[in-house]
Amino acid sequence: MKLVPLADRVVLKQSTPEEKTKSGIILTSQTQEKPQQAEVVAVGPGGVIDGKEVTMTVKVGDKVIFSKYAGNEVKLDEEEFIIVKQSDILAVVED
Amino acid sequence: MKLVPLADRVVLKQSTPEEKTKSGIILTSQTQEKPQQAEVVAVGPGGVIDGKEVTMTVKVGDKVIFSKYAGNEVKLDEEEFIIVKQSDILAVVED
Amino acid sequence: MKLVPLADRVVLKQSTPEEKTKSGIILTSQTQEKPQQAEVVAVGPGGVIDGKEVTMTVKVGDKVIFSKYAGNEVKLDEEEFIIVKQSDILAVVED
Amino acid sequence: MKLVPLADRVVLKQSTPEEKTKSGIILTSQTQEKPQQAEVVAVGPGGVIDGKEVTMTVKVGDKVIFSKYAGNEVKLDEEEFIIVKQSDILAVVED
Amino acid sequence: MKLVPLADRVVLKQSTPEEKTKSGIILTSQTQEKPQQAEVVAVGPGGVIDGKEVTMTVKVGDKVIFSKYAGNEVKLDEEEFIIVKQSDILAVVED
Amino acid sequence: MKLVPLADRVVLKQSTPEEKTKSGIILTSQTQEKPQQAEVVAVGPGGVIDGKEVTMTVKVGDKVIFSKYAGNEVKLDEEEFIIVKQSDILAVVED
Amino acid sequence: MKLVPLADRVVLKQSTPEEKTKSGIILTSQTQEKPQQAEVVAVGPGGVIDGKEVTMTVKVGDKVIFSKYAGNEVKLDEEEFIIVKQSDILAVVED
Repeated sequence: MKLVPLADRVVLKQSTPEEKTKSGIILTSQTQEKPQQAEVVAVGPGGVIDGKEVTMTVKVGDKVIFSKYAGNEVKLDEEEFIIVKQSDILAVVED
Repeated sequence: MKLVPLADRVVLKQSTPEEKTKSGIILTSQTQEKPQQAEVVAVGPGGVIDGKEVTMTVKVGDKVIFSKYAGNEVKLDEEEFIIVKQSDILAVVED
Repeated sequence: MKLVPLADRVVLKQSTPEEKTKSGIILTSQTQEKPQQAEVVAVGPGGVIDGKEVTMTVKVGDKVIFSKYAGNEVKLDEEEFIIVKQSDILAVVED
Repeated sequence: MKLVPLADRVVLKQSTPEEKTKSGIILTSQTQEKPQQAEVVAVGPGGVIDGKEVTMTVKVGDKVIFSKYAGNEVKLDEEEFIIVKQSDILAVVED
Repeated sequence: MKLVPLADRVVLKQSTPEEKTKSGIILTSQTQEKPQQAEVVAVGPGGVIDGKEVTMTVKVGDKVIFSKYAGNEVKLDEEEFIIVKQSDILAVVED
Repeated sequence: MKLVPLADRVVLKQSTPEEKTKSGIILTSQTQEKPQQAEVVAVGPGGVIDGKEVTMTVKVGDKVIFSKYAGNEVKLDEEEFIIVKQSDILAVVED
Repeated sequence: MKLVPLADRVVLKQSTPEEKTKSGIILTSQTQEKPQQAEVVAVGPGGVIDGKEVTMTVKVGDKVIFSKYAGNEVKLDEEEFIIVKQSDILAVVED
């Protein structure tokens, strides 16, 4: 089973587990709204979206920084993904 | 009786019953705003919507992930459906 | 006396009386914001509305599902109507 | 003295006096936000408004249903008027 | 010293002193948000504003009804003025 | 060191010190949101901004009335400036 | 490892450490929403963004004033960066 994103959406897989403090307390949403690192696992086709041409510039395998606040979390076959619009991706991390 | 969606709307049938915790407590709306899985049962014609050309890309039978927050629940002949705009569908789930 | 809707507006007549629980309690607005069924009794001319061409696709006699939240209730000659924009109509119900 | 509305505005004169309950209590704004009936007493010239061509379709003498919530109340020579944009007029009432 | 308004702005001089009740209580802002009468003392040049062509139709000396809620109060040489966009002027009052 | 504003931004230097009442109480932000007088010290190049052509009409040395609410305060070399978009300038004050 | 910003985004490195009062209290977000100084370390390609052509005018090495409120903080290899849209940069500081 795999996720095929529509339009200008991108499926991300977070590189790091959910942040917890050492004492195990889950950080509040305030803190989780900070941008985070993830890997691109699928890219939508782009095209005319809301009347505007969108060209997809990220590609599968890219490590990206995104604004977690804008994404939707999805669980599929026990794996967790995040689906964002490409415009919610702030930067690509290059080695 | 059947639902024929207008414009860029899509009728969905949720694959899973309403989530309850084991002890029977209905989850709060906070939790229900997460995206969810459903099957497409009817697709609107698309066309010029709010001055912008919309092409419908999902089709009947597609399993999709959508943002429940944006949809409208409808009950028809004791069956429950959700009507969303195509732009609220995040991804198609393929086998 | 009759209502002649302007622009992209549609006059609806609700098929079902106002919902009350068996004990007579009127349901809260939270509940009433759910989409509801109604019959189209008059359709505006469409045309260029807010700078965008709108074609009317519903017709008198159609049974429709609409989002009650967006409509305006009107009382004329002791009869109650709801006036919505066509874009607030989610689907047509066909037999 | 008379009111000459600008752009897409319409001057209305309410057919009915301010609603009070029999015991004289003034109804709350919640209730007053419902659409109401009024007569058109002056119509603006229309034209290009906020970059969009607006054609005026109501005319002096029309009985209209409008959304009171959107209008501005004006008092001139002890008479009360309501100034609305034409897009806040929902329907014309015909005999 | 004089005020030369930019773009689609209009400088108004209120014809009536600040409303007080007979007993001297200053009316609350709720009440002051109602439209009010003023005289036009200066008119901006209009032109392309926010990408849209705006033609100025009011002129110096016009008595106008405006929505006080939208204006900015300015004090110059002990005189008080109100600067509004032309679109906040609802109607011209003619004799 | 000097500030070179981007796009449609204008750097202002307030002519008057921060308002205090005679007894030294600093006025609340409610009061400070009123438009204020300042002198233009630098003007951005204008051009196509957010897809719309903007022509700069204010010039260095102009005394202007602006809406303080919209500006950003900047401190450079112990001097305080305010950076606003030209559209937040309401009028030029001429002698 | 380096950050390659997408679209109209700009990566900034703040010249000054996080502000604290002398007694070590971290200033509240109210205070931190003030514009701040930073150096440009990477500039996105610009192009058509949300249907509008954006030309990048800042360049690597520029000292800029930006509205901190709009930016996203990113941590990479123990270094902290801020990613903003170019439109959130108010001015360039020149010597």
